[in-house]
Amino acid sequence: MCRWDRLLGTPVFLSQVLFQPEHSLIDQSLHSRMGVETTNGDGFGVGWYTQDMDTPAVLRDVGPAWNNRNLLEVAHHVRSGLFFAHIRASTGTAVQQTNCHPFLNGRWMFMHNGAISGFHRLRRDLALAVDQDLYLDIEGSTDSELMFFLALTFGLTEDPPGAVARMAGLVEKAGHAHDIAHPLQMTLAVADGERVWVFRYSSEGRSRSLYFSTKVDTLRALHPDAAFLRDISDETRLVVSEPLGTFPGAWNEVPESSYGIIQPGGDALHAFRPHPQGDSARS
Amino acid sequence: MCRWDRLLGTPVFLSQVLFQPEHSLIDQSLHSRMGVETTNGDGFGVGWYTQDMDTPAVLRDVGPAWNNRNLLEVAHHVRSGLFFAHIRASTGTAVQQTNCHPFLNGRWMFMHNGAISGFHRLRRDLALAVDQDLYLDIEGSTDSELMFFLALTFGLTEDPPGAVARMAGLVEKAGHAHDIAHPLQMTLAVADGERVWVFRYSSEGRSRSLYFSTKVDTLRALHPDAAFLRDISDETRLVVSEPLGTFPGAWNEVPESSYGIIQPGGDALHAFRPHPQGDSARS
Amino acid sequence: MCRWDRLLGTPVFLSQVLFQPEHSLIDQSLHSRMGVETTNGDGFGVGWYTQDMDTPAVLRDVGPAWNNRNLLEVAHHVRSGLFFAHIRASTGTAVQQTNCHPFLNGRWMFMHNGAISGFHRLRRDLALAVDQDLYLDIEGSTDSELMFFLALTFGLTEDPPGAVARMAGLVEKAGHAHDIAHPLQMTLAVADGERVWVFRYSSEGRSRSLYFSTKVDTLRALHPDAAFLRDISDETRLVVSEPLGTFPGAWNEVPESSYGIIQPGGDALHAFRPHPQGDSARS
Amino acid sequence: MCRWDRLLGTPVFLSQVLFQPEHSLIDQSLHSRMGVETTNGDGFGVGWYTQDMDTPAVLRDVGPAWNNRNLLEVAHHVRSGLFFAHIRASTGTAVQQTNCHPFLNGRWMFMHNGAISGFHRLRRDLALAVDQDLYLDIEGSTDSELMFFLALTFGLTEDPPGAVARMAGLVEKAGHAHDIAHPLQMTLAVADGERVWVFRYSSEGRSRSLYFSTKVDTLRALHPDAAFLRDISDETRLVVSEPLGTFPGAWNEVPESSYGIIQPGGDALHAFRPHPQGDSARS
Repeated sequence: MCRWDRLLGTPVFLSQVLFQPEHSLIDQSLHSRMGVETTNGDGFGVGWYTQDMDTPAVLRDVGPAWNNRNLLEVAHHVRSGLFFAHIRASTGTAVQQTNCHPFLNGRWMFMHNGAISGFHRLRRDLALAVDQDLYLDIEGSTDSELMFFLALTFGLTEDPPGAVARMAGLVEKAGHAHDIAHPLQMTLAVADGERVWVFRYSSEGRSRSLYFSTKVDTLRALHPDAAFLRDISDETRLVVSEPLGTFPGAWNEVPESSYGIIQPGGDALHAFRPHPQGDSARS
Repeated sequence: MCRWDRLLGTPVFLSQVLFQPEHSLIDQSLHSRMGVETTNGDGFGVGWYTQDMDTPAVLRDVGPAWNNRNLLEVAHHVRSGLFFAHIRASTGTAVQQTNCHPFLNGRWMFMHNGAISGFHRLRRDLALAVDQDLYLDIEGSTDSELMFFLALTFGLTEDPPGAVARMAGLVEKAGHAHDIAHPLQMTLAVADGERVWVFRYSSEGRSRSLYFSTKVDTLRALHPDAAFLRDISDETRLVVSEPLGTFPGAWNEVPESSYGIIQPGGDALHAFRPHPQGDSARS
Repeated sequence: MCRWDRLLGTPVFLSQVLFQPEHSLIDQSLHSRMGVETTNGDGFGVGWYTQDMDTPAVLRDVGPAWNNRNLLEVAHHVRSGLFFAHIRASTGTAVQQTNCHPFLNGRWMFMHNGAISGFHRLRRDLALAVDQDLYLDIEGSTDSELMFFLALTFGLTEDPPGAVARMAGLVEKAGHAHDIAHPLQMTLAVADGERVWVFRYSSEGRSRSLYFSTKVDTLRALHPDAAFLRDISDETRLVVSEPLGTFPGAWNEVPESSYGIIQPGGDALHAFRPHPQGDSARS
Repeated sequence: MCRWDRLLGTPVFLSQVLFQPEHSLIDQSLHSRMGVETTNGDGFGVGWYTQDMDTPAVLRDVGPAWNNRNLLEVAHHVRSGLFFAHIRASTGTAVQQTNCHPFLNGRWMFMHNGAISGFHRLRRDLALAVDQDLYLDIEGSTDSELMFFLALTFGLTEDPPGAVARMAGLVEKAGHAHDIAHPLQMTLAVADGERVWVFRYSSEGRSRSLYFSTKVDTLRALHPDAAFLRDISDETRLVVSEPLGTFPGAWNEVPESSYGIIQPGGDALHAFRPHPQGDSARS
C-alpha cells in the first residue's frame, strides 16, 4: 500500500505540496487515514519535470520520507509545474531504490498504489509478456514496475488508456488462470510531461481512494477571500490518494472503474475496463 | 521517543524476542501502544554479548527495523544471553548510525528512551562537563549519547547508580539554569556483560513506561502447562518499554523514580533520585 | 569485477581473514592488485554458517566494505568455520542489497566474480530458463544471481558440478545465438554448509584469478616455527581471488578450466567444461 | 583527504562539470592523481544556489559518488551558476550524512580538503571556542564542520578572510599547546551566493593542491576555435582540487599560503597567514 500526490499547473516548490498542507503527504507517511497501511516508511520518490528538459528527474531513497534530508532540501529548492510524489509501504518485495516509485522511461513517468494478488505466482508469466528490448531496463522486483513495462509493451506512449486496459486485461487473465479471484487492485498515474492520466480500477470493484482537486476558478468563486487561490493558475490541479486538507469544495473522488486525463485546455473523465486478452495481446 | 527490549539469561536467538512475540519490538516499531510516538522508524540497534568476548557487538542502521534484512539475518542466527534492542523515533537530531542506540564503550552498553527538554540550549554546557579523554569518542549528536558520556565521566564503570544520579543531577541543574521546568525524562538501561541496571525517572514524575518480566520459577508455578517456560533458565529476564504480549502474571511495571539491578543470584529494586550538583560534580 | 574470500575449517572470527592479513579483502577493496577494477566499493556481503543452524546468515550492504561499521562489528564478534566474503564492483547493474553476494537459497550459498558478456541482450532468454517456482525468489537484477538460479534449476543441490556445467553451457549457447564471441567469464564458489565447490572458467580461456591455500600440515612442515599454524586445524582452507599475503608456499593458483571440491577428508581438483545445451537442458 | 570542484558563472547543469570532463570529479573519486588517497568513496555532497532563493540547497549521501543515482539525476536536471561539489575520504570520523561537505549555515556554504592533525586531542578545546548559539547547530563529528563553526564564531559572515585567519590561528595555537608540530592542513572554499573565497594553507607549508581556471576571455584568445568557450560567460570560473582535463592554458595553481576572491567584476589573490591567537580570540 502506498500514497501519492501529483500536481499540474503553475510551477511551485515541491515543498508547498509535500510538506506544508495540513494533511500533507509527509504527514500521511506517518499517519495515513484512508490507506490500507497506516505507516508508509519503506521508501519514497519524487519525480519532476523542468522547463527546457525533455526527461523528468527523480529522487528516490529507501528510508522513510519523513526524515529524509535530501528530500527536504530538494523539495524546498526545486520548482515544477508537474510532479509526482510517492511514499511506499512494501507488500513484501525488497526495500530498495529500484523498487521506489515513480518509475521513469524516457519522458514517461509512472506510479502506482495497489497490488497484483498472488504476484509471486504470476510474476514469471507477466515478465515473459514484456517486450524483449524493454525487458533489459527492468531493475527492480515489484509488481508496479512490471505493470509499467507491460503498459509500455502494449503501447503506453501512443495510447495510454488502451495500453493500460491491455495491461490490466493481461494481469486479470494470468490471475484467473491461477485461480485468483480478484487479481488486480490499481490506482495509477502516468505522465508524459504535458498531460497526466489517472486510473482507478480493481477486479473486485473496491479500488483504493483517489481524489482530484476542483478547478481553481470554481474554488475562487466559492472562496472569494482565499488569498492563495489568487496566486495559482487556472490549470493547477492536484490528484492525491487522500485529500491534503479540509478546504470545502476542494476535493472530488475519482469514481470506481474510471480514468481521467488532466491537461491544459480541459480535463476528461471516462469509464475504464480492462481489455480482454486473447492469445495475441499485442496485436 | 523510542522503545526497547533487553534480555538476560539463557542464550536465545535474538529473533525469539525481537520478532516472535505477539506484540514484539518489531511490531511496536510500527504500532506502539504506550509510546509518545506510534511510529519508531528513525533507526534501530541491537547490541549483544557473546561468550568468550569481553566487548559486545552492535548492529545499527538508519532505516526502520521492520524492513531491515541484516537485522532479520542476525536476529535469526545470533544467540545471546544478554542483549539490548532499540528502535528510534528521532526528536529532532539527525537520523544517522552514530545516533542509534545502544551506545558502546569498552564492555559497557547503554540505551535510553526519553529526552532532555530544551536540549539545544543545554547541549554545550553539558558537553563541557564530559571528561577530556572521553570527549574524543563522542560520535553523534543526541542527548542520549551525551548522557552516556556524562555518566561515564561521573564513574559509571565503578558505581552505575551513583554515576547516573550525578548525570541526572547535572542535567536538572543545567536545565533549571535555563528556566526549564522539567529538564529530564529518562528510561535507561546499562549493562556490563553480566549485570543490567535499569532506571525510570523524570523531573516531572511522569516517566515513560518500563516493565520487567516475572521470575521464571514464579511463572512456572502460575502456568504449569506452558511448555516454553521449561526451556528457559530461572535467570532469564526481560526488561521492556511495553509488554510483549498478554501472558498473565508475566509483566510488572518498574515504579516511578526507581532503579533496578538484574543479575545472577538475585535482583534488587531501589529508589532513585538525582544527585544535586554543586560546583564540583566530579568530586 | 569483484573480489572474494572463503574459508573452511576451524571456526575463526571473520575479522581474522577479512581485516588482519597484510593484503586482506578489505585492503583489496581499496587497492586490488589483480582485479580488473582496482576499486571494489559498490557493496559487499559476508555469509557464514554457524553450528546448530541449517541455514547460513548473510550481512550485505550497499556502501564500501572498508568503512562499514556493521561489518566491522560482526566480523569481530562472529566465529565460523565456513564463510564467504565478497566485495563488489558493479559492471552496470544497480547498487542495491539484493545485488550483493553471496546469494542464499536454503542452506546453499553462492558467489561469483566475473560477468556474462552482453548480459542485457541475454537477460530475458536466461530468465525464461529458470524454473517457475524458483523464479519467484529472484530479487535483484545481476547476471550473478541469475546464474545461481539457473544452476539451481539445473540440479545444483544434487550435482553441483553438473548443474554449473549446464548453466555455463546455456549461457554460452544463448550468447552465441546473439553473436557474442566469449559469453562467459566466471569464478564461482558454492557451499552447502559442509563442502565448497569452486569453479574457474571463461569462454575465452582467460579466467579471473583464483587461489587456494596449501594444506596446513604441508605448511607446518615448511614453516615449523610459524606459531599461528599450530592453532588451526588441518582442515582449514582458504580460497581467494588474490593471495592475502606473501607467506611462502601458502598459495596455489586454481588452473584454468577446472573446479575443485574442498571437503572434510580430502579435496579434489577436476577439469571443467560447459555442458553443451540442446533443446531440453533440464532432461 | 577529499577532492572538490566549484563553479561560478553562467548557469550550467551540474553534470557538465561533475560528469562530463575528461578527468571529472566523478573520475577523481575513483582515481585521484594528486590526492593523498586515491579513492574518495566515503560520501559526497553537492550544494547549489538557485535564482530567487536566498539559501543554497544541498544533496549529500554516505556512499560513493560514482554510483549514486540521485546525484546523477540531480546533476542532469539542476542548473546553477554557483555550486560546490565534494567527495570524501574519511580520515577516521564516521561515514554519515552530517559529516559530508558542503556544510550550510543560512546562505553560507563551506567545504574543506585537509585535516587538523591530532584532532582527537584538540576536539574538545576547539568545540569550547564555538559560540553558544552556533554550537547548537553542529550535527556531525568532523574537524571540517568544526572549522566552519569556528569561522562563523569569528565573523565569517562579515569578514571571511579575517575569520578564517582567526580560526586557523586558534587551531595552530591549540595544536602547539598539545605539542603538534604542524596542526593545520587546509584547502577551503566558502561562498555566500555571490562570491567565493578560496584558501590554501598548511602549517608545514605543503598544502594540498588547488587550481583555478583561466578567465574565459583569455582562453578565447588562446583557443579561438574552441566552440564551447563561446557558450559560457566571461564570469565563469572553476576552482578545483585537480584540473579536470588538459586544456592548454586553462589551469593555474593557487600559490601556497594565499587566498583568492572570485566575484563578479574582478577576482583578487592575497597572501594568507593565520591570525595569532591571544587569550581573547573573539575581540
